Amino acid sequence: MSMSSEEMISTCLEHTMFSWAASGTVSPLPIARAQGVYLYTPEGQKILDFNSQLMSVNVGHSHPKIVEAIKQAADGLIYVYPGAATEARARLSKRLAQLCPGDIDCFFFTLGGAESNENAIKAARLYTGRPKILSSYRSYHGATNACMQLTGDPRRIHNEPGGPGYVHVMPPWPYDYSFGADEDQITANHLRYLDEVIMYEGPDQIAAMFVETVVGTNGILPPPRGWMQGLRALLDKHGILLVCDEVMCGWGRTGKLFAVEHYGVVPDILTMAKGLTSSTVPLGAMGVRRAIADHFREHVFWGGLTYNAHAFACSIALAAVDVLVDEGMVDNAAKLEPVMRSEMDRLRDKHPSVRGGRCIGLFGMIDIQRNAAGDSIAPYDGTHPAMQRLAAFFRDEGLFTFVRWGSFMCNPPLCITEAQLREGFEIIDRGLDITDEAFEG
Amino acid sequence: MSMSSEEMISTCLEHTMFSWAASGTVSPLPIARAQGVYLYTPEGQKILDFNSQLMSVNVGHSHPKIVEAIKQAADGLIYVYPGAATEARARLSKRLAQLCPGDIDCFFFTLGGAESNENAIKAARLYTGRPKILSSYRSYHGATNACMQLTGDPRRIHNEPGGPGYVHVMPPWPYDYSFGADEDQITANHLRYLDEVIMYEGPDQIAAMFVETVVGTNGILPPPRGWMQGLRALLDKHGILLVCDEVMCGWGRTGKLFAVEHYGVVPDILTMAKGLTSSTVPLGAMGVRRAIADHFREHVFWGGLTYNAHAFACSIALAAVDVLVDEGMVDNAAKLEPVMRSEMDRLRDKHPSVRGGRCIGLFGMIDIQRNAAGDSIAPYDGTHPAMQRLAAFFRDEGLFTFVRWGSFMCNPPLCITEAQLREGFEIIDRGLDITDEAFEG
Repeated sequence: MSMSSEEMISTCLEHTMFSWAASGTVSPLPIARAQGVYLYTPEGQKILDFNSQLMSVNVGHSHPKIVEAIKQAADGLIYVYPGAATEARARLSKRLAQLCPGDIDCFFFTLGGAESNENAIKAARLYTGRPKILSSYRSYHGATNACMQLTGDPRRIHNEPGGPGYVHVMPPWPYDYSFGADEDQITANHLRYLDEVIMYEGPDQIAAMFVETVVGTNGILPPPRGWMQGLRALLDKHGILLVCDEVMCGWGRTGKLFAVEHYGVVPDILTMAKGLTSSTVPLGAMGVRRAIADHFREHVFWGGLTYNAHAFACSIALAAVDVLVDEGMVDNAAKLEPVMRSEMDRLRDKHPSVRGGRCIGLFGMIDIQRNAAGDSIAPYDGTHPAMQRLAAFFRDEGLFTFVRWGSFMCNPPLCITEAQLREGFEIIDRGLDITDEAFEG
Repeated sequence: MSMSSEEMISTCLEHTMFSWAASGTVSPLPIARAQGVYLYTPEGQKILDFNSQLMSVNVGHSHPKIVEAIKQAADGLIYVYPGAATEARARLSKRLAQLCPGDIDCFFFTLGGAESNENAIKAARLYTGRPKILSSYRSYHGATNACMQLTGDPRRIHNEPGGPGYVHVMPPWPYDYSFGADEDQITANHLRYLDEVIMYEGPDQIAAMFVETVVGTNGILPPPRGWMQGLRALLDKHGILLVCDEVMCGWGRTGKLFAVEHYGVVPDILTMAKGLTSSTVPLGAMGVRRAIADHFREHVFWGGLTYNAHAFACSIALAAVDVLVDEGMVDNAAKLEPVMRSEMDRLRDKHPSVRGGRCIGLFGMIDIQRNAAGDSIAPYDGTHPAMQRLAAFFRDEGLFTFVRWGSFMCNPPLCITEAQLREGFEIIDRGLDITDEAFEG
């Protein structure tokens, strides 16, 4: 294969639709190959991947062991219908049972995060016999119709009407007011607020509450101290299932294999995708605790998909999980967290337009302010010319990341070295002169 | 890999959930490898695949050219985010534009049929600005929440409540009464019925009507003569989009590349999956006509997924499409249709319990009756002990197919030879003695 950038771009624009965009306005990045933490254009420009594409290529691009696993799997069983037992399905599910928190030891395989959450909605409703689902503003759970209704960002609004019974609550870190003066107060007040919402919605009508264990796209927001433990207790009090969406924050991203491990709680259902295969092939999963698995031994699970437990995909996931775990990439994410934080602090101290950055593991975001009061340079769901110039600068200088509203992402593959990480922040450092020019003082 | 059947089965039952089932009641078929039209258990039992798994392995299992394509693709670009242009995306979309009917020349790539239909709902609503969606009883469109609402079989009922605005109409072949005495009358009366439903629902409230061009799981039902053309004209009159779900009936299954080619109509949106890759890797697509593609050049398409236009999957689809087309498998399906029909007629003449069979291409089903009046041996959404014994016989004798209610499927891979096809019907012939015993006369 050897198309020029121009031919790739013109053909893709002519014959494909682009997500979350009017295709007449997009300027696709032409990519010919990728290796480790780098992407390469057909003309050979080298681009540092500072977002693991969609926070999904956790082990880096084209890891040699995964490439080899693909070739081996090609000679094995590729696909058989979901009613079959296969060695790949058996091995992967057993491995996940070992790795997942608590007694989450039974899995329903899907193709990605949205379908994992779709099936979690089904499982929660069927298990509890209750119709309503709670979720949070500033969450993202996928683009299918039901997942859009769970979601609490602007994409939902364009996908309404959805179904009845989706109730959104404010997350513990709202934008412009606070639930308290310090973390403990915020946690306590927020849980009281949530308990009151549950009371008004009817506890025995609520099947589950969905949370991103650490909010991803909408801010990289670890919950305040004690909140996850308090949430677990509150939901237990009402017999409401806790569903942790770890599609983005799972598989080592936060410096633990799963983000819930930071908080010592076990959700009833854990949904995953992305890092499960590091995007090599599409695969997602819904993991459930033993009580739920036992329930569906006796009761029909009213869900399915052609590619449930796809044998080839399960084989590749096994290889990707092995690489992530055996090569110490989760520990690497934890080890590099202080490096990322110190780089963020350095940039905040140097650039007046940097309000600050935060990270947990290699899951990070930097916020840009337009004034010393800390107001975001861009409104909610909006942009600012300086942010657009910053995005263009990153692209020209060979840094791949997502710039949105008044923030940008710092989510490199978990195999990144300290030197490569600092290489990324060096480009960012130069770019921030652009937003500094827009700083109003 | 070399697990025993027992270990595969016990591990899968312990650590995975099974679709559309209570896992305590399933008896998974252990499969170690597959080649062409055959599956093999770890102990070496050879099983003729008479359903292409889920009507999806159109080119047969582990075709050597596809195995080679996997290995080559492993060394290329595996994955990059959906905003990128890649050679695989460009080549596949260009190829699909050549192959699809009429001016369907722009594609949104997904992971399977459900997500293709989810995105077709979005596209239809966004394009027309109308909220309602029409679909038919006896249809199946996928298992995500919105696709379940489109669906008109019992699986929907267990996935309610869905959202507002999904309206179901009777298909032209109802079970126990008729829209007329002959095909032309049925078509004319059904279209008048449909026009009246549209009037009562409000034509300017209806974005689209979804149909399986040939109904699949719920009966292998080609529409009556003139119906598809009449439907196209009726929907055009009201500005309602026609969405043809060709997830199951597309990619050669009916003896044409797409089933709509039998009827000479061009839908506004055509959804596909399964045969697009012959299940090698998950990939689906929504194809849209030029007017819709142009609309989304100017207007945001509010949909997306991490694995949209997955480069590795697009490469494999290119290879699978080439095999299907270049090796003449679509023609083979057309050529073997009369063989399948003659086998079905032979079985009907020989076995009193066979009400009859029907097929279009290699898309076929046989119905079992309990009496000479033609009543089905099993009620809607129910079973009969003789059908369960028939299913067990097929499994023991090495024929893989789906037995459901009072019918069973005949959907072999499109690479099947005449001798292999007759081999399948020979097993069926022997099995039908079981249902003959239950025939009441």
